[in-house]
Amino acid sequence: MIKIAIDAMGSDLGSPIVVEAIKNFLKDYHDVEFSVVGRKEQLKPLEGMVEIINSDAVMGMEDGALEVMRQKNTSMLMAIDLVANKQAQAVVSAGSTGAFLTGATLKLKLIPNVLRAALVSPFPCENGRSVTILDIGANNENTPAHLVQFAKIGSVFARKVGGVTKPRVYLLSNGAEAKKGSPVVKEAYKLIEKENSINFKGNIEARYVLSGEADVVVCEGYPGNVLLKSIEGTASMMNKMIKDAFKMSVISKFGYLLASKGFKQMKGKLDYKKYGGAMLLGVNGVVVKGHGSSDAYAFYNAIRVAYEMVKLNVIEELKEAMQNG
Amino acid sequence: MIKIAIDAMGSDLGSPIVVEAIKNFLKDYHDVEFSVVGRKEQLKPLEGMVEIINSDAVMGMEDGALEVMRQKNTSMLMAIDLVANKQAQAVVSAGSTGAFLTGATLKLKLIPNVLRAALVSPFPCENGRSVTILDIGANNENTPAHLVQFAKIGSVFARKVGGVTKPRVYLLSNGAEAKKGSPVVKEAYKLIEKENSINFKGNIEARYVLSGEADVVVCEGYPGNVLLKSIEGTASMMNKMIKDAFKMSVISKFGYLLASKGFKQMKGKLDYKKYGGAMLLGVNGVVVKGHGSSDAYAFYNAIRVAYEMVKLNVIEELKEAMQNG
Repeated sequence: MIKIAIDAMGSDLGSPIVVEAIKNFLKDYHDVEFSVVGRKEQLKPLEGMVEIINSDAVMGMEDGALEVMRQKNTSMLMAIDLVANKQAQAVVSAGSTGAFLTGATLKLKLIPNVLRAALVSPFPCENGRSVTILDIGANNENTPAHLVQFAKIGSVFARKVGGVTKPRVYLLSNGAEAKKGSPVVKEAYKLIEKENSINFKGNIEARYVLSGEADVVVCEGYPGNVLLKSIEGTASMMNKMIKDAFKMSVISKFGYLLASKGFKQMKGKLDYKKYGGAMLLGVNGVVVKGHGSSDAYAFYNAIRVAYEMVKLNVIEELKEAMQNG
Repeated sequence: MIKIAIDAMGSDLGSPIVVEAIKNFLKDYHDVEFSVVGRKEQLKPLEGMVEIINSDAVMGMEDGALEVMRQKNTSMLMAIDLVANKQAQAVVSAGSTGAFLTGATLKLKLIPNVLRAALVSPFPCENGRSVTILDIGANNENTPAHLVQFAKIGSVFARKVGGVTKPRVYLLSNGAEAKKGSPVVKEAYKLIEKENSINFKGNIEARYVLSGEADVVVCEGYPGNVLLKSIEGTASMMNKMIKDAFKMSVISKFGYLLASKGFKQMKGKLDYKKYGGAMLLGVNGVVVKGHGSSDAYAFYNAIRVAYEMVKLNVIEELKEAMQNG
């Protein structure tokens, strides 16, 4: 049986989307048990289906790394505690990223030899493949040694979860040549090149990250976050523009009807919600951060990612891969 | 009379697009003179219209910062020299970015008190405005003091060239709060906040850079380059997907015909070629880097940007703004 702890209070859209997601998940999967932490009265629809743990304290979306440990009884921290106390194997929250990452790292502790945990997300690519990018924002500053570890961690993830036999690993830089990049990137290049366990393919520019060429892209947390958010921002801007283009006139609306199949397929390819969120890799336990704006579908997928990571034994694999640092 | 030096050999598409761009420019503007450096036989169509300076040596697209000063007679370096020797006020090249930036910085020298030159480009926004982003890749590493200067330089550019009276300046970070960001960004925040000459509005996340909220976005060269290229990469991926969506069937092709007006308008809004390229700001002279893949239209616009910067006295304004560092 796979046991998953859920912070039911973090999402911007409130606990109803969490309730709906869990109900749907229980319909589709039968080897899973949930411990759901949140306001009891809001979780009534789940009674008899899951373990409900009452918590009236909610971590604010603006609460950051410093606040998380001060408020012991938030639904977020109590959900993390369930993993720390081995009562669950995974925790999912759509609450404040800073608070969740700090709480999870402090409570679950880093896997032996891991220097820094990284926030990881797969992204859909142009050619239908997906690319695992890390770190997309758990760290404000990284050393070359961190990046070497991210390359290893990302490889394990792409292999186990993505099903890629020999993941092609690239380093995010401002040019394809080895000599390009910030001092940290240049030094990391030299170190990663020496690692036999990594199928290293060199540097990649941000514009080719979604080309499907790379299975894993390694970067420092700060530029990684810029990468993540500029992809999201540009895609959202263009989606709005597409809508506007079709809305221009009655004729263009009719044009949409005719082309809608193609555009639905495009939307499917770009569907970030099917990944449900980002994972914190490098800690002792499965930690999945759902998007703050998750709907029930996205939260369902965040749960699915957590479920698969437990099922596929990703944490054990990571421990093994990091045995020698 | 405005005098512009052109490196005719740098573009991926060769000198014909440069020749065409110059011819068109001379039709539209009558207070401009060109000195065009390149292979004489390729520039024959311009005879009698511009000063032609022969150079058989071409800087390779892969040639970087180290190579540029070794080959004294490349068309690129000779074009830069024309500005260094006051025979021209601006130089335009579509050749290797690394070589061009290094050559221009070494030959033209930094404006007094400027610590680092920055590569700058305006980007089209969602709401039809544009945003000036710097540095988008001239530097591999920046200090907080550099970022303060970039805020000043970007403000002058947005005011003079963009026509914005009091440009709203934001700092690129991984969260809107003041405490967010890399150590360099956090320190820069404190310094920029103290500067009365800067209309500082705080941090901005990469996903809102193109929202139209900001007139100037300041960042280190490395994340700035990631920002630039992930915007370009995502936009290009989505453009391909839109094309595919319309191509799906005869019916969807017909849909395109009906919606084409809206999509042409969208393309116009996103037309990066109308900005022609990026500018190196902080050196003694107008330096415009056309895209390597420029066609005649994009190169024309790169020339137009150079022309406007001379006409608007941007360099003098920058000197004044940087008087106290």
